[in-house]
Amino acid sequence: MVKEIMANSLPTGPKGIRFLFGEFVHYDYFFGYIGTLLHAESGIQHIHIMENEFWGKMLFINNCLQFTERDEFIYHEALVHIPVQASPKGKIKKVLICGGGDFGASRELLKYPEIEEVIIVDIDPDVPKLIKKYFPSLLPENPKDPRLKLITADAYEMVKKFTREKKNFDLIIIDTTDPDVSVEGGKTQELSHALFAEEFHRMLLEMSPEGIVVQQCGTPFTMKDILKGTYQIFKKVYPENEIYCYRADVPSFGGDNAYLMRFPFEDPKTPKWEELENTLYYNHEVHRASFGLPKFWKEVLE
Amino acid sequence: MVKEIMANSLPTGPKGIRFLFGEFVHYDYFFGYIGTLLHAESGIQHIHIMENEFWGKMLFINNCLQFTERDEFIYHEALVHIPVQASPKGKIKKVLICGGGDFGASRELLKYPEIEEVIIVDIDPDVPKLIKKYFPSLLPENPKDPRLKLITADAYEMVKKFTREKKNFDLIIIDTTDPDVSVEGGKTQELSHALFAEEFHRMLLEMSPEGIVVQQCGTPFTMKDILKGTYQIFKKVYPENEIYCYRADVPSFGGDNAYLMRFPFEDPKTPKWEELENTLYYNHEVHRASFGLPKFWKEVLE
Repeated sequence: MVKEIMANSLPTGPKGIRFLFGEFVHYDYFFGYIGTLLHAESGIQHIHIMENEFWGKMLFINNCLQFTERDEFIYHEALVHIPVQASPKGKIKKVLICGGGDFGASRELLKYPEIEEVIIVDIDPDVPKLIKKYFPSLLPENPKDPRLKLITADAYEMVKKFTREKKNFDLIIIDTTDPDVSVEGGKTQELSHALFAEEFHRMLLEMSPEGIVVQQCGTPFTMKDILKGTYQIFKKVYPENEIYCYRADVPSFGGDNAYLMRFPFEDPKTPKWEELENTLYYNHEVHRASFGLPKFWKEVLE
Repeated sequence: MVKEIMANSLPTGPKGIRFLFGEFVHYDYFFGYIGTLLHAESGIQHIHIMENEFWGKMLFINNCLQFTERDEFIYHEALVHIPVQASPKGKIKKVLICGGGDFGASRELLKYPEIEEVIIVDIDPDVPKLIKKYFPSLLPENPKDPRLKLITADAYEMVKKFTREKKNFDLIIIDTTDPDVSVEGGKTQELSHALFAEEFHRMLLEMSPEGIVVQQCGTPFTMKDILKGTYQIFKKVYPENEIYCYRADVPSFGGDNAYLMRFPFEDPKTPKWEELENTLYYNHEVHRASFGLPKFWKEVLE
């Protein structure tokens, strides 16, 4: 019965009245919300948009919270500014976002005039459509920025194609749902599953041998296996001395989120670009701090 | 009605059966748990001990979570090892803990053979009693360590007395409930209230002019005013260039917890003692990182 609740904790209607809903972290621990349903849709993923006074609007995919209006800035700024600012100044010109159909990562990237091209490849056409309607604050400052291109496709297949076309990226951001969180109970795997696999990373390395790769790896305190498993894959594909882990506390995720990075340059812990005025989370101080990991994280990364 | 739930979210009996209970962060956002009640008691504070598979045993005071068995090590290690290791090596010999009747801070302090005396002054006799029964893992390795003294008294009054007696401490740890969280709805103030006040800090400074003072300041993302207000008080009492803020992600608190420190020596960001073997969170790497604050925290500390 608890599994039933886990799989079906979000209402599908009617809209506009107040619901009590929740997201289970474990079968006996959950984040509970009182709020209203704005949108429920099942395309290739189940998407719910809820609204709650504390968090603002919230996007759920397959019953898992993806972000809230109130703290998405932390997740997205850490995802983008750390790899960009770690790189040699001006080095990042072409960026591929695998997933990221919510535009949050592209919004951050396009703050840099040095970045010339940002391609989002997201498999789900509903996500960008719903963001434009419900979450305008996630869009880039200029939503028609000519440097931005959105492709609705499977990033796995698209990377194959880009590789054949000899396309090259300075930075590849993998900004997806957590893999396999709904495997239990006979559910199908998350669409993001393939983007955590060894084969995908081998393709990225072939496509962009000198590219920086950053992948969000969930919140290790509650979902240790995602970071552990992804780290093992990074170690198989990339030189071990080019692999770094960093973290950012995203309160709606319940604490520190982990990011793994393949970084083939010197000293990612030192930011090398100028600080931006228009960030809310990122500064050079938190950049350096992000790489300092607690002892129990080190044990996951062995 | 929501306020009623907030004030009364924990069951008082019967013990041993499974309850759904929660802690409200905001009136429309809460942490929900399924678990069993082990103990409920109203002495000078309302104390509940619940058990839940994910978190283990959990201690609530006045309906607010104080710690869980699963992640209290993060809160306590950050509270203790950062001020100790920041200080000149061997400098910390005598320590006063105001609050801290759960023994967690004393457990960490007594790991250092250099520390000669640890005095806990907690107002509530029920807390140490219940810890001994339900949370033996919070006790010092040697629970009868002769360096440890527990005094059941109001820390405010005790500091007055210590000052008259010319007692001096190298480190003063203020390890209490969050102040005033249950003021709403006509409730009385938390007992910890006075330990966040200017007058209390003036007494600490008089008692130990060269003492390090560290105070837990809640989780600023959800309770910004505690850090902001305490920082204003620190600025009134201590020289501004001796005030530092650091953080540690305590997942059961919903993210980064803040600590304010009055530190009258050089460079607290550099640890100066040897790393201990027997910690789970603390290492020198996380010590340095703890002082790196996100941009939106900086705005709270102005």
